[in-house]
Amino acid sequence: MPSSRSKPARWQYHARRQGTAACIPFSSRPAAPLDLINRKILLAARPVGLPKETDWELTESPVAEPSDGEVVVRAAYLSIDPAMRGWMNARRSYTAPVEIGAVMRARGAGEVVASRDPAFSVGDRVSGWLGIQEYATLAGHELAKVDTALAPLPVWLNALGIPGFTAYFGLRDIGRPEPGDTVVVSGAAGAVGGMVGEIAKLLGCRAVGIAGGSAKCRHVVDELGFDAAIDYKSEDVGEALRHHCPDRIDVYFDNVGGEILDAALSHLAMHARVVICGAISQYNGERPTPGPSNYMALLVQRASMTGFLVGDFADRFADAVNELARWLSDGKLRSVEDYAYGLETFPEALLRLFRGDNLGKLILAVAQT
Amino acid sequence: MPSSRSKPARWQYHARRQGTAACIPFSSRPAAPLDLINRKILLAARPVGLPKETDWELTESPVAEPSDGEVVVRAAYLSIDPAMRGWMNARRSYTAPVEIGAVMRARGAGEVVASRDPAFSVGDRVSGWLGIQEYATLAGHELAKVDTALAPLPVWLNALGIPGFTAYFGLRDIGRPEPGDTVVVSGAAGAVGGMVGEIAKLLGCRAVGIAGGSAKCRHVVDELGFDAAIDYKSEDVGEALRHHCPDRIDVYFDNVGGEILDAALSHLAMHARVVICGAISQYNGERPTPGPSNYMALLVQRASMTGFLVGDFADRFADAVNELARWLSDGKLRSVEDYAYGLETFPEALLRLFRGDNLGKLILAVAQT
Repeated sequence: MPSSRSKPARWQYHARRQGTAACIPFSSRPAAPLDLINRKILLAARPVGLPKETDWELTESPVAEPSDGEVVVRAAYLSIDPAMRGWMNARRSYTAPVEIGAVMRARGAGEVVASRDPAFSVGDRVSGWLGIQEYATLAGHELAKVDTALAPLPVWLNALGIPGFTAYFGLRDIGRPEPGDTVVVSGAAGAVGGMVGEIAKLLGCRAVGIAGGSAKCRHVVDELGFDAAIDYKSEDVGEALRHHCPDRIDVYFDNVGGEILDAALSHLAMHARVVICGAISQYNGERPTPGPSNYMALLVQRASMTGFLVGDFADRFADAVNELARWLSDGKLRSVEDYAYGLETFPEALLRLFRGDNLGKLILAVAQT
Repeated sequence: MPSSRSKPARWQYHARRQGTAACIPFSSRPAAPLDLINRKILLAARPVGLPKETDWELTESPVAEPSDGEVVVRAAYLSIDPAMRGWMNARRSYTAPVEIGAVMRARGAGEVVASRDPAFSVGDRVSGWLGIQEYATLAGHELAKVDTALAPLPVWLNALGIPGFTAYFGLRDIGRPEPGDTVVVSGAAGAVGGMVGEIAKLLGCRAVGIAGGSAKCRHVVDELGFDAAIDYKSEDVGEALRHHCPDRIDVYFDNVGGEILDAALSHLAMHARVVICGAISQYNGERPTPGPSNYMALLVQRASMTGFLVGDFADRFADAVNELARWLSDGKLRSVEDYAYGLETFPEALLRLFRGDNLGKLILAVAQT
């Protein structure tokens, strides 16, 4: 590994040699031609409510030589997502659960360290479903090359990755805002929510964000350029929506569910579009999610509420990258990342996400020293 | 009034002469050139929960001579609608509340008995917002002439009226079924629900109805031609939906809300469309309506839930009448009416609706002898 490569300021790539992994008895190890140890976090138990430390197991094993068509990627950044909570449940949702004993599923970006797929060379920067581990061995077709000349590697997990595509397609294709429309988004200081507001402004809309705490609200208005922000922790959301949205809400982009969704439903404009992107307030609930009791507002306002999954737009991701990258380079869009450091901090970092203790995209910077 | 005109079998038009209205002191009456007494039902109080007898007042007054542009209509049939419950609340919904002391709002069909609008002649059959009263004086532009050669008068309050248009536009424009789709409708033995299933079959879909009780379920399958019916009073709706909809639900047309909506949301097919037409199970609730706790199924299935009001399709009602009337005359569509008799039975008839004690469109036949 070229250890002299330039690194983010606060941490460095860190490759552990096999001999230093003292907790695995030497005699039981298979031949590991790459002479590298992979540290990984497995799902140990299905959590009830918020995930606990004991729901995880940090373990390690040698990195195996790739088979034909496979590529070994050293993870640099791993994406920490609200959806992870759903993947931990036994019940199939839009994707299969993570099995007990399997590496926790995660998107990530990193560098190719070994390749038996002619399309990839050592040193290529790639993104894909790396999992919460330091080295991932995947089929080449499961990886996408990323161009770090266009944007730094972490941005490929944010504005030029799933969060950016989610904001872009969810707002444009599902929300269908017109210039002059009022767009309200919850989770506005999060990765998707922030970009929804930024893109709404780029499309000529009024953007109002809902976030928790005055610091986040300031961030949303001062850094991201929203017209207004509502602090759900200190304000009556319904009253604040009436105040900030005198022409009511044309597009409501929901990341949180619960009472905030209800408040927004009560203030829809005629023919409003409600985009259901997530419901982070509900993911750790042990009882059935309470539904939006004001859903009959859909009838009164002839409005629609539509769920979507960004994966359905995969054939248009390349177009989105082009437009999002242009906005980034023109300074019209900000990709905001927030970091946790070190593979072993993953369990706590995930809880940070559910506490709402992050600004923008929460990313685990792995192999930290 | 020509009392020899042919009448429905079980009742007759009934015009009371002013002199017989003994409860109004003769001396206090203004000149009433039409020499007719109008009996009417006023909203006396805003109900809590189910409307009680004391929420209504039956009263009478002379029928006034029409002003320029006005028409006096003798009501023959008045439509009893679930939406009436919402109009009785103080809070504005999609239309203004009925004021305390005002005649209860209702659609109706009847015969012109006096006209100062050149577009209408005595004897014309018309429909409009007559209210729960025997005589309505309205501006001519508020009335529509109906052609009883095309269908009998009550049918103009059902298949060729708002229920027919609601089923027609709600299913076609909001539900957008494709041939082969599975269409599920709740309230399937009601006016709208029954026609939704009938039209679904005409469009080449599989139709599954949800209704309360075995008699209604037999009606839905045997009389209306649904492929299957689920009795929510004796069956587990979720299990029955899995049984009767092996390819899941492509279009769910909801008239009831509550647990049945939740069960349907749990069984949506990919890209399903949920049409929110009503929520009769919730209209009399004193507490906030519980929302559909499975609304996140919209995300998992990339589905939409859309509310609509049939009034938004008013400019296409004439087209709908043409197609619906052709289906009726070809015997492909049944317009099912259920009657209550006599103006004074209105309060009890409305409760019948909320008990679900009607098949098809509940109509108040007024001026019964």
